[in-house]
Amino acid sequence: MSFAHTPAVEFAVFDRGDALATPSALASHPDAASIRGASARGEFTFDLELRHAGRQRITLRYETQGDPALPAVFVAGGISAHRHLCANDASTQAGWWESQVGSGRALDPARHHLIAFDWIGADGTLDAPLDPSDQADAIVALLDALRIPRLAAFVGCSYGAMVGLQFAARYPARVGELVAISGTHRAHPYASAWRALQRRAVALGALQCDETHGLALARQLAILSYRTPEEFAARFGAAQVSDGRVRVAAEDYLDHCGAQYVARTPTTAYLRLSESIDLQQLDPSVIRVPVTVVAVAEDRLVPVSDAYDLVERLRGETRLRVLRSLYGHDAFLKEEAEVATVLREALTDCTQVAA
Amino acid sequence: MSFAHTPAVEFAVFDRGDALATPSALASHPDAASIRGASARGEFTFDLELRHAGRQRITLRYETQGDPALPAVFVAGGISAHRHLCANDASTQAGWWESQVGSGRALDPARHHLIAFDWIGADGTLDAPLDPSDQADAIVALLDALRIPRLAAFVGCSYGAMVGLQFAARYPARVGELVAISGTHRAHPYASAWRALQRRAVALGALQCDETHGLALARQLAILSYRTPEEFAARFGAAQVSDGRVRVAAEDYLDHCGAQYVARTPTTAYLRLSESIDLQQLDPSVIRVPVTVVAVAEDRLVPVSDAYDLVERLRGETRLRVLRSLYGHDAFLKEEAEVATVLREALTDCTQVAA
Repeated sequence: MSFAHTPAVEFAVFDRGDALATPSALASHPDAASIRGASARGEFTFDLELRHAGRQRITLRYETQGDPALPAVFVAGGISAHRHLCANDASTQAGWWESQVGSGRALDPARHHLIAFDWIGADGTLDAPLDPSDQADAIVALLDALRIPRLAAFVGCSYGAMVGLQFAARYPARVGELVAISGTHRAHPYASAWRALQRRAVALGALQCDETHGLALARQLAILSYRTPEEFAARFGAAQVSDGRVRVAAEDYLDHCGAQYVARTPTTAYLRLSESIDLQQLDPSVIRVPVTVVAVAEDRLVPVSDAYDLVERLRGETRLRVLRSLYGHDAFLKEEAEVATVLREALTDCTQVAA
Repeated sequence: MSFAHTPAVEFAVFDRGDALATPSALASHPDAASIRGASARGEFTFDLELRHAGRQRITLRYETQGDPALPAVFVAGGISAHRHLCANDASTQAGWWESQVGSGRALDPARHHLIAFDWIGADGTLDAPLDPSDQADAIVALLDALRIPRLAAFVGCSYGAMVGLQFAARYPARVGELVAISGTHRAHPYASAWRALQRRAVALGALQCDETHGLALARQLAILSYRTPEEFAARFGAAQVSDGRVRVAAEDYLDHCGAQYVARTPTTAYLRLSESIDLQQLDPSVIRVPVTVVAVAEDRLVPVSDAYDLVERLRGETRLRVLRSLYGHDAFLKEEAEVATVLREALTDCTQVAA
C-alpha cells in the first residue's frame, strides 16, 4: 500500500465481503490527514476482489477535512463527482459540493471529519465491470487504512446513494446512518436504457477513432436526464434556421456541457461508471441502518416511485423527504437551502456528538 | 403535374399563402380515386414555395379511401407515418393506424372520405429545412388537385397535430374542425434538445461513412421520448454482465426498433422531418376553427402544460381531453378504446352529415 504524501507501504489486499480488513494489512495513518482540522489528500494501492471482474489492483485517492476526533462522515456524489468536496487547504479549487460542504454549511469540517474519494474506475485505468458493491468494499478498505472504525453517517447523492445503500447492507457495523439522496436500490429500467444509449454514442464515436465526439454526445444526453423540461422551457426559446440547418436554442449550452466533460473525463471511466449504475441491484430489506431517503418529485432518472418502494422495504428506522425542484435529478447540486435542511435534520445526532 | 395512376399533366405551382390554388392549375381528378368507396393512390409533382428554402419541386404521394361524396377527413400522424392508414384495396399491407381507421372503426371509409399523404420530405430527396406550415401548404395543394373544397375535419397526431394547427391557421375556410392529438403550437425546448441530440447521433455516424448506425441510435433515443418509465419498468428487468460489458434489459428491444426504422427510412428524411418539428411556432390565437385538443398526462415529449397553454390561447370553440397512458407520447398508437372515444365524440358532427 502506498500513500502519496506519506511513507510508502506495499499494497494490501481487501477481499470483497470482509466486514473489516485484517488489521495487519492496514497501512499506517497518513501524516497529512492526522493534522487536526486540516484537509489532507492521499492515495494508496491495494488489490480488491471485484464482483464481476475478479481481483484487480486499485489505486484509491481520497481527501479528508476536519478533526479526525469529530464524527466521521463519508460523502459521495454522482459518477462525475470526486474526492474534492470544497475548496480547502488541500486544494483551493472549487469542489463539486460547495453548496453543502464547508465552514458554516450543513457538512462543516468544524463539526465533522469529512471523507471523500475518487470512485474506483474514475482514473480510466480500470477497464472492467464495476459493481456499486465494489465501491462500498473500496470505501471500507479506505476506512481501515485511515483507522476509522465507524462512520457516524454516509451521505450519498445519485450513484453515491446507491453505493451508500450497498455500504449499509454490507457493513452495518461501520455506519451509524445513511442519507441517500436521489439514488435507490435499483437502476430504473428506463434510466438504464437511457444510459445504454449514451454508451452507444461513445461506441459510435470510437468507430471513427474520435472518442471525444461520442463522449460529448453521451454527456449531452445525460444532461437531459439530469434536468427537467420545466427548466429548459424557462431557459431556452425557439429553434432557428441557420445555414440551411435547424439549430435549437439549447445547443450552445449542450455544446458547453459536452466540451467541459470531455476535457476532464477519461472515456473508459465514463463507460465503466455509467455501467456500474446499471448494475445496482440490492434487496433493501437487508438494511437495518437508519436511512433518510431523499427523492425529488421531478427527477426523470430516479422516479419518486422507486424511492417509495425503497422506503417501504427498508427494515431500520426510515425517513422520507420528497423535494420539489426545477432541476430534477440535479437538485442535490442546485437546491442549496432545501438540501441543507434535509442534511442538518438527518445529521442532528452526529452533530450533537460533536458539539 | 403528373398523377401516377392517371394521364400525366405537367406540374402546377402552388405558392405558400394561397388560400386556394388557381383552378386552372388543377389537374383532372385521378380516375382511381373517383371510384366510389374504393381506396386509391396517386402522386403528383408541383413547385412549392418553402418558408425557409424557397421554391422547390415536390412529389406528393397520397392515398384516399371512402366515397368522395362523404365528409372529407384528412388524417396525419407522426414523422414516421405515411399515406397508408390501414390495409385496403390500394394495399393489403397493414397501415400505421389500423386501430382507428377501417371498417367499423372511428375513422371508417363507410362514413368518411379519408385522405392521407406521405410527408413532403419523406422520400429523402428534399434536403432543405421544412416548416410545418410547408406541409399545410402541400396539403392544400393536394386538396385542390383532388377537387376537395373543404375538409369536414383534420385529424392529426404528434407532428400531424402541429401541421393540423398550421392548416387551421392558414386555411380556415378549408376545414370544419381539427382534432390535435399529442401535438401543439410549439416544439417544447426540452423535446427540441432531445431531437437535436438525435440528429447529432446521425452526424456522428456520418463521420464514419455509416449512416445506419447513427440513424439507428437516433431512433432508439426517440423511442425513449415516445414511451414512459412506467412501461419500461413493466417490460424490462435488471441489467446483466455479458462478455465483460453491461447489457441492459431493454437493449434487444431497442436494437429491434433501430433496425426496423433504418430499413424503411432515408436518413435525409429523418433529419429534415425531425428538424421540422422543432420549427413549429404558431400563435394559437389566430385559429378560429373548432379544435379538440387531446393530451396525454404521461407524454414526455409534449408536456400536458403545453396543451393547456394551447387551449387557453385558441379563439374558436375548444375542447380538451386529457388521457392517461402507460405509452406516453405513443398513446395515439396504443390506446385504442380511449382514442376511439375521443375521435367518435369529436367527429359526431361530420358523421351525422354522412348519415
